[in-house]
Amino acid sequence: MNSTSPEHHVVIVGAGFAGLSVAASLDGAPVRITLVDQRNHHLFQPLLYQVGTATIATSEIAWPVRHLMRRRRDVVTLLGTVTRIDAAARTVHLEDGGDIGYDTLVLATGARHAYFGHDEWEPFAPGLKTLEDATSIRRRILLSLERAERETDPARRAALLNFVIVGAGPTGVELAGAIAELAHQNLPREYRQIDTRRARVLLVEAGARVLPSFTQDLSDYARAALERLGVEIHLGQPVSECSAEGVVFGGEFLPARTILWAAGVRASQAAAWIGAPADGAGRARVESDLTAPGHPEIFVIGDTATIDAWHGKPVPGIAPAAKQQGVHVAKTIRRRLAGDPSPRPFRYRHSGNLATIGKHCAVIDFGWLKLRGSLAWWIWGIAHIYFLIGVRNRLAVALSWLWIFMTGSRSACLITQSEHPPKRA
Amino acid sequence: MNSTSPEHHVVIVGAGFAGLSVAASLDGAPVRITLVDQRNHHLFQPLLYQVGTATIATSEIAWPVRHLMRRRRDVVTLLGTVTRIDAAARTVHLEDGGDIGYDTLVLATGARHAYFGHDEWEPFAPGLKTLEDATSIRRRILLSLERAERETDPARRAALLNFVIVGAGPTGVELAGAIAELAHQNLPREYRQIDTRRARVLLVEAGARVLPSFTQDLSDYARAALERLGVEIHLGQPVSECSAEGVVFGGEFLPARTILWAAGVRASQAAAWIGAPADGAGRARVESDLTAPGHPEIFVIGDTATIDAWHGKPVPGIAPAAKQQGVHVAKTIRRRLAGDPSPRPFRYRHSGNLATIGKHCAVIDFGWLKLRGSLAWWIWGIAHIYFLIGVRNRLAVALSWLWIFMTGSRSACLITQSEHPPKRA
Repeated sequence: MNSTSPEHHVVIVGAGFAGLSVAASLDGAPVRITLVDQRNHHLFQPLLYQVGTATIATSEIAWPVRHLMRRRRDVVTLLGTVTRIDAAARTVHLEDGGDIGYDTLVLATGARHAYFGHDEWEPFAPGLKTLEDATSIRRRILLSLERAERETDPARRAALLNFVIVGAGPTGVELAGAIAELAHQNLPREYRQIDTRRARVLLVEAGARVLPSFTQDLSDYARAALERLGVEIHLGQPVSECSAEGVVFGGEFLPARTILWAAGVRASQAAAWIGAPADGAGRARVESDLTAPGHPEIFVIGDTATIDAWHGKPVPGIAPAAKQQGVHVAKTIRRRLAGDPSPRPFRYRHSGNLATIGKHCAVIDFGWLKLRGSLAWWIWGIAHIYFLIGVRNRLAVALSWLWIFMTGSRSACLITQSEHPPKRA
Repeated sequence: MNSTSPEHHVVIVGAGFAGLSVAASLDGAPVRITLVDQRNHHLFQPLLYQVGTATIATSEIAWPVRHLMRRRRDVVTLLGTVTRIDAAARTVHLEDGGDIGYDTLVLATGARHAYFGHDEWEPFAPGLKTLEDATSIRRRILLSLERAERETDPARRAALLNFVIVGAGPTGVELAGAIAELAHQNLPREYRQIDTRRARVLLVEAGARVLPSFTQDLSDYARAALERLGVEIHLGQPVSECSAEGVVFGGEFLPARTILWAAGVRASQAAAWIGAPADGAGRARVESDLTAPGHPEIFVIGDTATIDAWHGKPVPGIAPAAKQQGVHVAKTIRRRLAGDPSPRPFRYRHSGNLATIGKHCAVIDFGWLKLRGSLAWWIWGIAHIYFLIGVRNRLAVALSWLWIFMTGSRSACLITQSEHPPKRA
């Protein structure tokens, strides 16, 4: 470590897979780094649906950013929300005061779920992007069951026992499978007045098949596997209304108290901050080397950017793609500091698609190899344990999974964070 | 199990140590039971301060009540908030509709922290009774450190690094010790702009010594041990003001952004519901058999009742006392149903006081044996693991403790549940 701090200042906004990958790959480079995020933790989003469905605890898939960076004396971690970027002055403005000047800026601020112009649906159909989203979804699912247990009116009870998931990509499929297992297999013996096996889990999709990013045969397998779990699948049926009463799809109204949204994403404001061109989902269109057009000192990566770097197709919004982009950015920064400013294009190397459906049931598409069923499920589980950060979290998640696998008992069925805090009883 | 449901209906309000103990001890009795709580989980309060100080996760010390009762077909678990009791009609009224008739009623609704007539202090000095309290305290501690890391004004930075704990009973001592360890030992290497070792942890107590329920020599030991951890102890100094700016004690104002309240409790509304006489803290004064005066069919137990059944002294508000009362109530109900209505007085058997101060440091007073230091700490840890419900939670807490013991890394430093949800960055 140098006794004098290097001159070149890299500011990374966002501590998701993309941002952390840049920081990790810059270890030892002649730069000083400031890492800004509006939350204090990095989140392992691939397992977030398991928090939402009461399988694992929040702390098992989230790690404080400054703890991850504790050995990196070259990194200053700040909790802060970016409001504006002055690209001419090379300055990042934070919400509660404080400007940060930069030499190189990396924007990796991710995406939120999107409602295709119907943001008014959000209160009735929450998505799944943050820890708070996940505990909120867990609360909704468990509260619906609790209320059904006390409800005497058959129609209202039925509405409480209808669980609708909108969107049949990996998140929707994983949520639907996990909720079906929860209601149909784990919880029946805990309720006395209702039979949770009669809860309906509906997966509603505007497109023609589930898991559209997978091959047709894996889609077909996933659909059949979900149906075996008791999930009702409605394809080709766009949702046209969400309310406190229920959801309209295929022109029909279904009363439902729990609607979960897994249908679309919208990029963060990064493109707007720097005036970059964007696609329909708000993702910045970046140059082949992942820089913003006209701003070689600004990189935009991860879910808030779009680039056709996968044999001419857009890079998918998954963790491995974000990590690869982070590595590419770090290499470019190092090369520039070593005196080589020539841009090199980013190329995405696809390693595969994975999605889990339920116990002993997953699909994997490596391209050269397609797997489904029990073997795919084991590989999915081992891969996810492996990619978790830290030995302690690997042990904790492995324990949670082992427990539910052997006993069928969910360990994290907690209703916390009430919208209306309970009064003293 | 009978094929016809027994006639006698026992309604238990509150699923804390007292209420659960009644339910557990009535296993196999000729009654049907309804167990009502305003939360869906039982909470192991003795370890709640460890959630507040980022040592363990919320799900490790909280269990869904209906999961605990899953094998008890005689128990109906309801999530609901009691608003009123009609003792003449023998009916419990719930907030969102629904009356529950009872033959025997057990009120075990616990206590909250109290501010001695200054409820306006609560927003500035939260107490520690619920999971939400604990995550709120954790958020305050961690946010103060995060803000200090970004603060450039020395006075404001100092205020952010002052942590004041009001009340030096076991909860206050445990919080002060844990915060001192967190700031002075676990976190220094994670911050770059501030030295968290310079954070001040102040334990403020109106009385003359710390841990007043322990003997003088254990009090003295605990005080010295806290001071070794870097806790500043202010005895005989009642707090006269709490605000967003800081706290006044001993006539002096100390700027502080984090004030935690561990100074007093106030019983739930149980006494008021049934018009029972109460002491100054709102605890129902019960008959020697734990029934409400004039209502032999109503038992009031745990922290919401008071009775001089410890050799003429009041029974202490600790978990073992609540459990013993629950067992006594269940025995009385069984005896009555067997045709013996004669009341038998409850007698409290004190097994000991335990309090932990920090790593390798606790005090235990069994009466016949007093322990302090490392051995006491090991006994404290083993006893608490033992009393946790369920093998899975024992494993999880043991793993958390082992991890922090060996690595010094806190596993649960998450800021969640923001008062003001972060906007999209």
